[in-house]
Amino acid sequence: MTYTKEQYIDLINQALETYLYSVNDGQDIVVDAMRYSVRNGGKRVRPMLVLEFCRVCGGNVEDALPFACALEMIHTYSLIHDDLPCMDDDDMRRGKPSCHKQFGEAYALLAGDGLLTLAFETLTKAKNIDASDIVRAVQTLSERSGVSGMIGGQVIDLLSEDGEPDDALLRRIDRLKTGALIQASVRLGCIAAGVTDEKILKAADVYAQNIGLAFQIVDDILDVTSSTEALGKPVGSDEKNDKVTFVKLLGLEKCKALAEELTGNAVQALEGLPGDTKFLTDFAKALAVRKN
Amino acid sequence: MTYTKEQYIDLINQALETYLYSVNDGQDIVVDAMRYSVRNGGKRVRPMLVLEFCRVCGGNVEDALPFACALEMIHTYSLIHDDLPCMDDDDMRRGKPSCHKQFGEAYALLAGDGLLTLAFETLTKAKNIDASDIVRAVQTLSERSGVSGMIGGQVIDLLSEDGEPDDALLRRIDRLKTGALIQASVRLGCIAAGVTDEKILKAADVYAQNIGLAFQIVDDILDVTSSTEALGKPVGSDEKNDKVTFVKLLGLEKCKALAEELTGNAVQALEGLPGDTKFLTDFAKALAVRKN
Repeated sequence: MTYTKEQYIDLINQALETYLYSVNDGQDIVVDAMRYSVRNGGKRVRPMLVLEFCRVCGGNVEDALPFACALEMIHTYSLIHDDLPCMDDDDMRRGKPSCHKQFGEAYALLAGDGLLTLAFETLTKAKNIDASDIVRAVQTLSERSGVSGMIGGQVIDLLSEDGEPDDALLRRIDRLKTGALIQASVRLGCIAAGVTDEKILKAADVYAQNIGLAFQIVDDILDVTSSTEALGKPVGSDEKNDKVTFVKLLGLEKCKALAEELTGNAVQALEGLPGDTKFLTDFAKALAVRKN
Repeated sequence: MTYTKEQYIDLINQALETYLYSVNDGQDIVVDAMRYSVRNGGKRVRPMLVLEFCRVCGGNVEDALPFACALEMIHTYSLIHDDLPCMDDDDMRRGKPSCHKQFGEAYALLAGDGLLTLAFETLTKAKNIDASDIVRAVQTLSERSGVSGMIGGQVIDLLSEDGEPDDALLRRIDRLKTGALIQASVRLGCIAAGVTDEKILKAADVYAQNIGLAFQIVDDILDVTSSTEALGKPVGSDEKNDKVTFVKLLGLEKCKALAEELTGNAVQALEGLPGDTKFLTDFAKALAVRKN
């Protein structure tokens, strides 16, 4: 059985509602804040990758839903904390007030902590998956989202704000800040399918690395070429924040060529996977030509 | 083999240093911030409970060290985030500048996120413990530290700041804010020893509930009766922050009697445990008569 993007998004959104359970013990404002940010979701790129990698590797998509939701929770918590005044101080997120603008800083902080914690609780809800594979999932997700992964990328990004980053530094920030979580997604999909073959895991990693970097480069391109309406957030924010981007370093044309090259690499890596990879091919190509 | 408090603290501190590994990839400021707060540790109550419950239930103390360290990391992250300006806005923690005073708000936020994430990574490092028990540990720790546990208590505490809390509300805040993590500690000790007997788990819970509440009541008493030198933090802060405490609700004498009663309940619950419970008896009594 294959799925469309829309079918995946429905599955993911339904499962997220289930796992974001209400406590009804007086603290529901924080669950409301968590739900607010999770519902104001984007493209569900990470959970979709979990589900499709599980399917391609012969696993059951429904069984992978807790893993998929955990990825989206980690992604969402990172956005809530990134938007806080002591970080990027962003009032808007995807056309709506950011979590702390809607609920106040204290509850936004706790909503982020709550989602981060709930992500690991949700991993343990997986059914029909060996305990040893759930442990691998906890390990992979914590490593890739922690200080040697996503949080680490955030730190290097903060540190580099006043410096003069070069291409290598920018790639490293991206590899950690965006790439690590995309890599965790494809890995968790493989783990949900019980994959232990290093060759398959390696192919998944190469796909993730390439679409992760392409994703960021296209983000930088859109910040220059898109409109606020199409993007759902103010364009030109990189310029305004004096942020060094791939576009600034390489120019628009080279960036477009690089995104295309990376997408080609990603598609090629799919040859190392066991199942039908049409969805993942289309997915990589669509990310490269997306308009928001 | 039995251990003294000092031996446990040495084991815990050594293990914490091992698990707080350096990444050496440019983001070490955040690991420094994490280490700073973990090293500025208190009584190591939670990890010690993990180790001793493991021992009493027939498990190997060394095998339980990753679980013990995970508890201390969760506790430390919660203190870092609690001290932030948008929460309690505390400049000092145990006689030293709080994490955000030392490293800035952004890095303190990320250090908290990093410790929370590392706690779950550390659980997966356990050796000689069944994968199914590691999954139980992830589940227990995430539930008790999340929105239905510690974070939930924090939220109710914030919400009640402007109201008139009563005894029942104060007990609920404490059950979640302090109690949930103490309960997670004794549970993780049992899990590390492979305990599945509900009677033993129940006895451990009753012990945890009682020392957890006694711990908070003694905290409230010390804030009134201790000196800043003995306590290592300013006394009278509850009064200054207009915080409703057990002392304010019940008076000093009733609080002392209640702490004694709860300690007695805790000691009695130990009869349900399989091993020698002298350490845990002394531990409960020492918490009740502590001076800081």
